[in-house]
Amino acid sequence: MDNGRLKQLLQQVADGRLPVAEATEQLRHIDYEDIGFAKLDHQRELRRGFPEVVYGAGKSAEQIAAIFERLHAKSRRSIIATRCDADKYAAVAQLAPQVEYNATARMIYIPAEGLRSSGLVAVLCAGTSDLPVAEEAALTAELMGARVERVYDVGVAGLHRLLAHQRLIAEARVLVVVAGMEGALASVVGGMAAAPVIAVPTSIGYGASFEGLAALLSMLNSCSSGVVTVNIDNGFGGGYAAALINRQSAC
Amino acid sequence: MDNGRLKQLLQQVADGRLPVAEATEQLRHIDYEDIGFAKLDHQRELRRGFPEVVYGAGKSAEQIAAIFERLHAKSRRSIIATRCDADKYAAVAQLAPQVEYNATARMIYIPAEGLRSSGLVAVLCAGTSDLPVAEEAALTAELMGARVERVYDVGVAGLHRLLAHQRLIAEARVLVVVAGMEGALASVVGGMAAAPVIAVPTSIGYGASFEGLAALLSMLNSCSSGVVTVNIDNGFGGGYAAALINRQSAC
Amino acid sequence: MDNGRLKQLLQQVADGRLPVAEATEQLRHIDYEDIGFAKLDHQRELRRGFPEVVYGAGKSAEQIAAIFERLHAKSRRSIIATRCDADKYAAVAQLAPQVEYNATARMIYIPAEGLRSSGLVAVLCAGTSDLPVAEEAALTAELMGARVERVYDVGVAGLHRLLAHQRLIAEARVLVVVAGMEGALASVVGGMAAAPVIAVPTSIGYGASFEGLAALLSMLNSCSSGVVTVNIDNGFGGGYAAALINRQSAC
Amino acid sequence: MDNGRLKQLLQQVADGRLPVAEATEQLRHIDYEDIGFAKLDHQRELRRGFPEVVYGAGKSAEQIAAIFERLHAKSRRSIIATRCDADKYAAVAQLAPQVEYNATARMIYIPAEGLRSSGLVAVLCAGTSDLPVAEEAALTAELMGARVERVYDVGVAGLHRLLAHQRLIAEARVLVVVAGMEGALASVVGGMAAAPVIAVPTSIGYGASFEGLAALLSMLNSCSSGVVTVNIDNGFGGGYAAALINRQSAC
Amino acid sequence: MDNGRLKQLLQQVADGRLPVAEATEQLRHIDYEDIGFAKLDHQRELRRGFPEVVYGAGKSAEQIAAIFERLHAKSRRSIIATRCDADKYAAVAQLAPQVEYNATARMIYIPAEGLRSSGLVAVLCAGTSDLPVAEEAALTAELMGARVERVYDVGVAGLHRLLAHQRLIAEARVLVVVAGMEGALASVVGGMAAAPVIAVPTSIGYGASFEGLAALLSMLNSCSSGVVTVNIDNGFGGGYAAALINRQSAC
Amino acid sequence: MDNGRLKQLLQQVADGRLPVAEATEQLRHIDYEDIGFAKLDHQRELRRGFPEVVYGAGKSAEQIAAIFERLHAKSRRSIIATRCDADKYAAVAQLAPQVEYNATARMIYIPAEGLRSSGLVAVLCAGTSDLPVAEEAALTAELMGARVERVYDVGVAGLHRLLAHQRLIAEARVLVVVAGMEGALASVVGGMAAAPVIAVPTSIGYGASFEGLAALLSMLNSCSSGVVTVNIDNGFGGGYAAALINRQSAC
Amino acid sequence: MDNGRLKQLLQQVADGRLPVAEATEQLRHIDYEDIGFAKLDHQRELRRGFPEVVYGAGKSAEQIAAIFERLHAKSRRSIIATRCDADKYAAVAQLAPQVEYNATARMIYIPAEGLRSSGLVAVLCAGTSDLPVAEEAALTAELMGARVERVYDVGVAGLHRLLAHQRLIAEARVLVVVAGMEGALASVVGGMAAAPVIAVPTSIGYGASFEGLAALLSMLNSCSSGVVTVNIDNGFGGGYAAALINRQSAC
Amino acid sequence: MDNGRLKQLLQQVADGRLPVAEATEQLRHIDYEDIGFAKLDHQRELRRGFPEVVYGAGKSAEQIAAIFERLHAKSRRSIIATRCDADKYAAVAQLAPQVEYNATARMIYIPAEGLRSSGLVAVLCAGTSDLPVAEEAALTAELMGARVERVYDVGVAGLHRLLAHQRLIAEARVLVVVAGMEGALASVVGGMAAAPVIAVPTSIGYGASFEGLAALLSMLNSCSSGVVTVNIDNGFGGGYAAALINRQSAC
Repeated sequence: MDNGRLKQLLQQVADGRLPVAEATEQLRHIDYEDIGFAKLDHQRELRRGFPEVVYGAGKSAEQIAAIFERLHAKSRRSIIATRCDADKYAAVAQLAPQVEYNATARMIYIPAEGLRSSGLVAVLCAGTSDLPVAEEAALTAELMGARVERVYDVGVAGLHRLLAHQRLIAEARVLVVVAGMEGALASVVGGMAAAPVIAVPTSIGYGASFEGLAALLSMLNSCSSGVVTVNIDNGFGGGYAAALINRQSAC
Repeated sequence: MDNGRLKQLLQQVADGRLPVAEATEQLRHIDYEDIGFAKLDHQRELRRGFPEVVYGAGKSAEQIAAIFERLHAKSRRSIIATRCDADKYAAVAQLAPQVEYNATARMIYIPAEGLRSSGLVAVLCAGTSDLPVAEEAALTAELMGARVERVYDVGVAGLHRLLAHQRLIAEARVLVVVAGMEGALASVVGGMAAAPVIAVPTSIGYGASFEGLAALLSMLNSCSSGVVTVNIDNGFGGGYAAALINRQSAC
Repeated sequence: MDNGRLKQLLQQVADGRLPVAEATEQLRHIDYEDIGFAKLDHQRELRRGFPEVVYGAGKSAEQIAAIFERLHAKSRRSIIATRCDADKYAAVAQLAPQVEYNATARMIYIPAEGLRSSGLVAVLCAGTSDLPVAEEAALTAELMGARVERVYDVGVAGLHRLLAHQRLIAEARVLVVVAGMEGALASVVGGMAAAPVIAVPTSIGYGASFEGLAALLSMLNSCSSGVVTVNIDNGFGGGYAAALINRQSAC
Repeated sequence: MDNGRLKQLLQQVADGRLPVAEATEQLRHIDYEDIGFAKLDHQRELRRGFPEVVYGAGKSAEQIAAIFERLHAKSRRSIIATRCDADKYAAVAQLAPQVEYNATARMIYIPAEGLRSSGLVAVLCAGTSDLPVAEEAALTAELMGARVERVYDVGVAGLHRLLAHQRLIAEARVLVVVAGMEGALASVVGGMAAAPVIAVPTSIGYGASFEGLAALLSMLNSCSSGVVTVNIDNGFGGGYAAALINRQSAC
Repeated sequence: MDNGRLKQLLQQVADGRLPVAEATEQLRHIDYEDIGFAKLDHQRELRRGFPEVVYGAGKSAEQIAAIFERLHAKSRRSIIATRCDADKYAAVAQLAPQVEYNATARMIYIPAEGLRSSGLVAVLCAGTSDLPVAEEAALTAELMGARVERVYDVGVAGLHRLLAHQRLIAEARVLVVVAGMEGALASVVGGMAAAPVIAVPTSIGYGASFEGLAALLSMLNSCSSGVVTVNIDNGFGGGYAAALINRQSAC
Repeated sequence: MDNGRLKQLLQQVADGRLPVAEATEQLRHIDYEDIGFAKLDHQRELRRGFPEVVYGAGKSAEQIAAIFERLHAKSRRSIIATRCDADKYAAVAQLAPQVEYNATARMIYIPAEGLRSSGLVAVLCAGTSDLPVAEEAALTAELMGARVERVYDVGVAGLHRLLAHQRLIAEARVLVVVAGMEGALASVVGGMAAAPVIAVPTSIGYGASFEGLAALLSMLNSCSSGVVTVNIDNGFGGGYAAALINRQSAC
Repeated sequence: MDNGRLKQLLQQVADGRLPVAEATEQLRHIDYEDIGFAKLDHQRELRRGFPEVVYGAGKSAEQIAAIFERLHAKSRRSIIATRCDADKYAAVAQLAPQVEYNATARMIYIPAEGLRSSGLVAVLCAGTSDLPVAEEAALTAELMGARVERVYDVGVAGLHRLLAHQRLIAEARVLVVVAGMEGALASVVGGMAAAPVIAVPTSIGYGASFEGLAALLSMLNSCSSGVVTVNIDNGFGGGYAAALINRQSAC
Repeated sequence: MDNGRLKQLLQQVADGRLPVAEATEQLRHIDYEDIGFAKLDHQRELRRGFPEVVYGAGKSAEQIAAIFERLHAKSRRSIIATRCDADKYAAVAQLAPQVEYNATARMIYIPAEGLRSSGLVAVLCAGTSDLPVAEEAALTAELMGARVERVYDVGVAGLHRLLAHQRLIAEARVLVVVAGMEGALASVVGGMAAAPVIAVPTSIGYGASFEGLAALLSMLNSCSSGVVTVNIDNGFGGGYAAALINRQSAC
């Protein structure tokens, strides 16, 4: 809990405006909302300027709709559920008609009111098989207020496809590089860019990719400075971090 | 090679000021300097605003001194060599007396002329054994122009030590979290901070840390959004990325 | 075989009340019951005060029903079968109508006669996806006679949700912490609690969780003393060990 | 921070006995002591009833002596530094003559004043090579107030050596089983004991033990219920957890 | 190719009974039969006294039936196809009615004419989930002429179940121990037996068994001498090696 | 981009025949064709003498047909799509009737006009289960212009089957050895051949093959010099490299 | 404890020749001798016909000499200590002059009185670097009474070196195959031999041997039936198992 | 054994010029020379056109000198010993003064008489730390008759350094790419070259390179076709395979 709120609360106690018992209670309960199957962290919006994101994989349509309703009631920011297939979207849309859907990114969402985009996040991917992860990153960053440019299918086996985008690479405030197999694209882009590069390994590849381990290790060992890495197939995480950096650059 | 320089060069050719053969040559050779045992990438300063950094581990004092001399002649930015023990520093200092040394971070360096610090990078570490990596991160960021605040020995086993620094955590433009063992500090800080968190796993720990694997996987799987990861014990990489983000935030 | 029983048996031989051949036989066979497809370890109840538990995954409904019948005939303790889906429960219930079922924990069981609960086991989990494992732990402990308090969805990304339960954490005689991803919750709770913490890693997470390896290593490397670990997704094992500790504390 | 102290402090504020600014400060700083190179967590004694333990591996004799002095000044509990070789002990003893040393366990310590032992912790190990880890566990538990019985060199290759100790195994309130190689001793003891078993894998073994990985996985996969595991070679961790359980059993 | 046959062939050449060209050809082709989709190694029966065994997993019923027909025409030994489910058996039985089937072991086979059993192979398994692998081992050994005794469900968690079979363990000429989870049974039996023990790890277990890796490493690191190991779930391999050893003991 | 083309373009600029802006554009865009969901690398034919190959696994029949049409329009070389099952072939054949199909290799393809074969590539495999990978290698090499000889089912367990093919092994210009399990065939062939050997590990095997890891490590560690390795199950990669080497040998 | 002794002891109790208390005691203590730092398992000679073997790595010369003295006093079998370097031998020889030493195998030993050799164990190794492990296997088998033939430096890269020993391979009653790198020798020998093959992987090899993992996996996945595996570099284990099998063949 | 020699030998037998017994003997013994501690494979020169190479790591100077003498007496090809430090060279040079030494490559060698170079092998490496491995590859290829061009320190972080060598990359008949860290150089060169690329991963890198695993996996997963891989740090293997391919191209 941040210092300002603590002081204010203590001041109210000192002023006698707030009984001790109630203050104790408030210190425990004001920060989240318990809706039975989940504890919604409304305070996260205060800390991050962005509400909690729903990991949709193991949740029912009813649960997602309920969470969206609660978050939407408390926030005017974008609301996101990741890892939702088309069937789940259809079911959620029955219950919460205002939701939108991006089938490639497998995301259900409600854009923030008056969502504007600023800064510049470049999202690059190596092959067409990496598209779902790349699109998850791009859409996440957009819903968090970033202007996003997509450059897809620019693997290093045909370097000239990548070199054609040097201007964008130089101008972006942060880059998200999505690649499977050996993940070399991250290092090459890292050597060309002035801004930080967020590398997102994907699980695409033949046997010895070991479900993305090869790309992950490759990116962690990048010989280019300024490359940081997130989890395998975690497009959301890459887009989220990119949006945070982009937002800082913009303000 | 960036677009503007390409256009300029082509324009010179079009104007007849530059013969085709020479232009072809220039396109090949202007970008780096071959000093025998290494090819110095002076262009990197153009791209990143920061000269090449020397990985000191496998290099002789003579090589490091020679590289420092060449880089220093071409740049007024800070110059850094990482992973240098005290003996190597002593030998380099014989050849290049202007170098400075930080024993904890094991770095030899020449600060940029008139180095000023701006923004705010918070470097936190979990235990005293993580100090060398944390200090490598902190000094790197400082030499790249960041204002750095250090918060050391705040592992999650005694959470109150960390909570006492909530204001700094909230205010930093980017945070570097250095931890070995289970690396939980990154997730906890990630849940408290508004800015992006760069997690640096260290190889500190009992047997099943497997030389830092445990902390690395922990950080890659952080349940807190906005946490990105670099290589094990790579304090330099963490500090470099932090400085890039901090610089963007500052401009 | 315990010493007391050995002495008694030898005394009977010495007294001539028990022929040598029969004693030899008894020493071999009194301890378990062979029902064809399994050898039921009735002696386990003597050693542990709790009958053998059935791992339901690879067994048919007929087998489970038969084992329940035999165990129930010999013991008045709770009887448990883990990893049983709803279909298996339905089939078992046809054969053994007295069984009960917990769908989240996927457990079929018959509570002990006059089951009373004592002590205090706190079961915490980090996210809603960890619920099945957490519930398996909680129900196991309850059926073994522990009073259980559940605190779910308190991952470290929103620390205040956890801090609100500090009193429970301080008062529990043993805590079970269930978490996937980076499993940091175990370390944070370990730093807050006075009692031992049993960490249960789950297989929940993105690619580099490697089916729970990340959480497992994280928990094994906890910087908090007093944290011990069981197998991935082994809620039963966590609940069982907690109940043993709780029972010792209670007596 | 526990609830009682929070209420008391708030009450003081409410009563006007404590100004808001000072209360804010207290909430931040009362919990630990910053001695420059470390932050001593004096509050840990309140939470756990046992002061912070020093991981001696990367610390100088001066640092260890200083920490001992500070902890000793604030606490009358036992104080422990692990992983200290004989040379380090000699150096520490120069600075802090009251310290004692156990060469097998590689521990420097000051026993608690009037240390009494209660309960019963059994520490078993499989081979003579496991002795340092076993002794670290045993001494830790003793310094935390447990009565400890040692049963060493009882690997399962000669089962009768183990069976001879059945009475102790049945009577212990908690057992610590230390084993390298295949770590089977933990499962066998787990099948014989009524109390919880803390398994400590060691790095002893031929090539495919992979520095203790084999024993670790073996123990995590124990077919005996009630077996929990700590990190490889972490005798301290095993002894600490055993002492916590033993203490609960005793009170 | 064995020495005797080489000498004989060379003698025929020396005697002028065999032209050089034909001898060259024979040296290449007499040893196997090419039936299009496979090269049947009839010579294996000469070398091993047992014909080639068919790995049924990736083969069609037609292929298995054809191979059985060819092997059966050339040999009077038992013929075996492993890893065949009930559907494949049904299809093969249509084409080759003389085949028999063991559903637990998932093996199709034709017993040798006048198959007699000699020696004594003991096959033990830890849990009922290990039965398919154990039965594959037992049936393989029987079809190769061994007398087999089965002792199932004798995991070390209830040691008395195992101790009841000490006489068999002492008398067997070779033992096959099949176990998943931590595979401790192999070490315990290895400590009780006079004969060599073949350990067969299975993939049974919770998450950190990593599909049998835990049991495999455990068995490879057995503290009991005389324990050797085969591949995970490779009951056939365990039974085959046991039969080889048993046959040597018997002759 | 190759040097000759760069010089020519610069000459055109120097001659005033090409405006600077257009030259800049050309340098960026002449090298590939963007067809929306993919960027076709037509330049690859210039570099490698072989057009881009389509990884069919994640692509729709429409996408594959479209890529085939575009590549076929620009090239008269063979066109290949790998990892296509029979259903996908049927769908593609509806849209692009000229395609052919090899069901074992799971490849859709259009052979080059007037495809001739030269040199000699030997493709060997250890078992019948390795056939799909071996056939993918063989067909790839054939479509790239190599004469291919197949020697299948010659695993080292029956060495004489392999020794019968010594002449072919000695004469081949390059050999592709496909094997799962322990992959020993690569080393044995490597010891017999004069030409380089490309080893292709397959994922065939019991548990501890870990999806081909055993064969992969085996091949990387071959005691025979001249053995190089590609990814697990990557028959295409093995055949492609073999065709490159064979082509060089032939010219 | 074996059945016969149990019956005898019970009979003595029944006959009144043995008081109950003493019988209870005997059942506990007759089986081993506690010499302070170790519990010597004299019963092992009864079970295995071979006394306990000393793992010399972590033991002092004094300890080894003491154990040798005790074992030698109780047994006339060979006595062995493995993993002893020349310095340790020199020290032990001071205390126990009758010991002998094999420097390649790093073993200290006292041969059995009147040691005779029977049967035939063939020990093969792939390269000269594997010699220490191979010699440890060979000497162990010899000291246990086996006739041993050594065939060293016959790696599969030069197959003819191996084929020259076909007769020995066919005649041995059991074979020990020692190999590092890819360990292919085990499979090739397994395809040539009639008897069981014990494969011993060594840690010899370039980087991706991962300290013997490559050879270990290779041997576990052998396509030749009848191959069993022991731990990496465990020549003792391989020789021990071979001697057990050889002894059974001989009797 | 090759077919021609077999025919010739059989013809001699048929002609009565060679007794059967002697022929049998010859077939066994002509192929190698046993010099006590090693079996020299002189036949390898017949098969490969290059004599056996000595792995110097575990051999004494005396052994290396003896092998050089024997190989030199039988062959006029280059002779090589790898992994020899300067001390070993000094000792060998005492015994065999004609040997030469390359300190970077750590190789002792005698060049072939009249060694000529043909073809073109390009050896590239990413960083100066990769130099020893790269030089081992380059010198090996040279000693086997290849013309070699070295291009060192061209990591992808500064792509222009690499692009400056496009002509060489296009013209080489085979390329050896040596890189540690993420090994991306192999993929980038693979995308630029027309000839096959042999990738050699090195163990250079921070923690998560895991001694070269990251680079190895990266290279095995290269998105560029025509890239094949050898073992970690195996410069010799890379150079050897390159020389084989280059020689085929040249003839």
